[in-house]
Amino acid sequence: MTPRRLAELPTPALVADRDLLDANLRAMSAALPGPRLRPHVKAHKSTALARRQAALGHRGFTCATLREMEGLAAAGLGDDLLLANEVLDARRLGRLDARVTVAIDSEPTLEAAAAGGVREVLIDVNVGLPRCGCAPEAAGPLADAARRHGLSVRGVMGYEGHVVGVPDRAKRTLATEQAMALLAKAHADVGGEVISAGGTGTYDVNRVATEIQAGSYALMDTAYAKLGLPFRPALFVLARVVSVSRDFAVADAGLKALGMDHGNPAIEGATVWFCSDEHTTFASEAALPVGARVRIWPAHVDPTVAYHERIWLVSGEDVVGELPVDLRGW
Amino acid sequence: MTPRRLAELPTPALVADRDLLDANLRAMSAALPGPRLRPHVKAHKSTALARRQAALGHRGFTCATLREMEGLAAAGLGDDLLLANEVLDARRLGRLDARVTVAIDSEPTLEAAAAGGVREVLIDVNVGLPRCGCAPEAAGPLADAARRHGLSVRGVMGYEGHVVGVPDRAKRTLATEQAMALLAKAHADVGGEVISAGGTGTYDVNRVATEIQAGSYALMDTAYAKLGLPFRPALFVLARVVSVSRDFAVADAGLKALGMDHGNPAIEGATVWFCSDEHTTFASEAALPVGARVRIWPAHVDPTVAYHERIWLVSGEDVVGELPVDLRGW
Repeated sequence: MTPRRLAELPTPALVADRDLLDANLRAMSAALPGPRLRPHVKAHKSTALARRQAALGHRGFTCATLREMEGLAAAGLGDDLLLANEVLDARRLGRLDARVTVAIDSEPTLEAAAAGGVREVLIDVNVGLPRCGCAPEAAGPLADAARRHGLSVRGVMGYEGHVVGVPDRAKRTLATEQAMALLAKAHADVGGEVISAGGTGTYDVNRVATEIQAGSYALMDTAYAKLGLPFRPALFVLARVVSVSRDFAVADAGLKALGMDHGNPAIEGATVWFCSDEHTTFASEAALPVGARVRIWPAHVDPTVAYHERIWLVSGEDVVGELPVDLRGW
Repeated sequence: MTPRRLAELPTPALVADRDLLDANLRAMSAALPGPRLRPHVKAHKSTALARRQAALGHRGFTCATLREMEGLAAAGLGDDLLLANEVLDARRLGRLDARVTVAIDSEPTLEAAAAGGVREVLIDVNVGLPRCGCAPEAAGPLADAARRHGLSVRGVMGYEGHVVGVPDRAKRTLATEQAMALLAKAHADVGGEVISAGGTGTYDVNRVATEIQAGSYALMDTAYAKLGLPFRPALFVLARVVSVSRDFAVADAGLKALGMDHGNPAIEGATVWFCSDEHTTFASEAALPVGARVRIWPAHVDPTVAYHERIWLVSGEDVVGELPVDLRGW
């Protein structure tokens, strides 16, 4: 039986407020119309949600895994797919019925792209986050090598991930400019039309990128909510109070229903004490009876979604649909 | 094509060393033979691994979710299933073709068990961990109420989860004794044959429990490895180095392949800097080339397993089987 009301959902349930989600999607599309935004699907891992983004005019997508690339291609969303990640075996990419671009930052990843049958690449440049990406001065020579291998070099990418969470907007803007100066320099050496960068935290202060790879803006989380962006948290885990003691209550959603790398989730009007595998222990300002429903707001949306099979869509108290989380795994 | 060698596994891959796993299983079975151990499946979420535990003589299992109960029953492992958790809707339990016992700690959970068609219960007692469980003095009256509802009360359970990770063995023993004194007192009021408690950290110091609910001992993790128990870490995430910079390297497994609530994972001979969604950045003592395989040891096994579809079994460098992680979700 399909649940029709929020109160009928089995708990724990991952729930998105459809009206807030759609408002977030529209707000971003207004700021970054069409190809100015290349939505990152790693945050929601749902082709159904990607379809909503495509309907707003964003036909290019960013992915972090081969599975995400394959799923979007199979769903007919393969107009322009970027794997913003390095791979050492690109054969699954070469087989896709889609326009495929992959990031490379070294000779081995270049050779893997060519050997796997991929035709287009971006040079991934390290702009300050200690992760993937070549040194800015290595970008030009790597692009030359890629072209010698017969690859088409569309441009550069460089993710300012060390910057996107800086709370102060002025400091975030300055740090973004510094990171993007490195990317612009690399781009001058590499050429091509694309400068792909950015995230939800820098979507409107990154003025160098030709396209922004934001993903979290659609569903949001308590970490990003602190930045004062025009996107509101739309995703929560619905849980029920299964046990009550004198000074705390226990809800039936725990650390296997929530990404914990950014710390504890939040419950309005309550202090979260800790999460166990299947429980969250919290102290509520108002006394809650066994059976009460609570909304638990995740600190980090991406690893939260990856634990669930679906996102229920609600409008007020009505269940109005569901988004299968069909891009999990690798 | 089924991989035959460790080096052929696509990364990230969740891998268990079969020989270490089996040694862990045998060591626990020797210490707690047959019904003295009620393995907790929440740690591995795999009916195939539960089957190995059953083959060693453990025919009763502990579960944390309805899905785990349903999966074990469907797999023919339903001789004696305990849901060591409170539920407010027990109808899925009442339908199982299995012997089903559920924990209750309040009138509403009692009524849910009876209404759902469950016939046997344990009274869940709070022994110090702020989570589920009634106060010790409330256990007897709740058992009486359950019997008035026609339920069979098999005894008590009480998990000393605040104790299982105490590093010093003498202190852990003392704290376990204090917690179990509360449970023994409740048991005297409740009656029944079962005193179910314990975990991997207290499996040999808990002398009150008639059965121990250990789960982590099979696969282990870096958190439990610090306790000096006779179980060795058998579970790692195999990853490949996809990018190398002057002072760090980046492997292709991140916080969506690892449970992060106990902190960063470990890499032998290296310092882990941080995990991103699909990457772990680390500094290695030995220089690693792009393409090198690394073993990433999770800090917490339970939420790590819950991100994966299967556990590959290896013996040395050979892939010798796989354990589907078929009990995920709720």
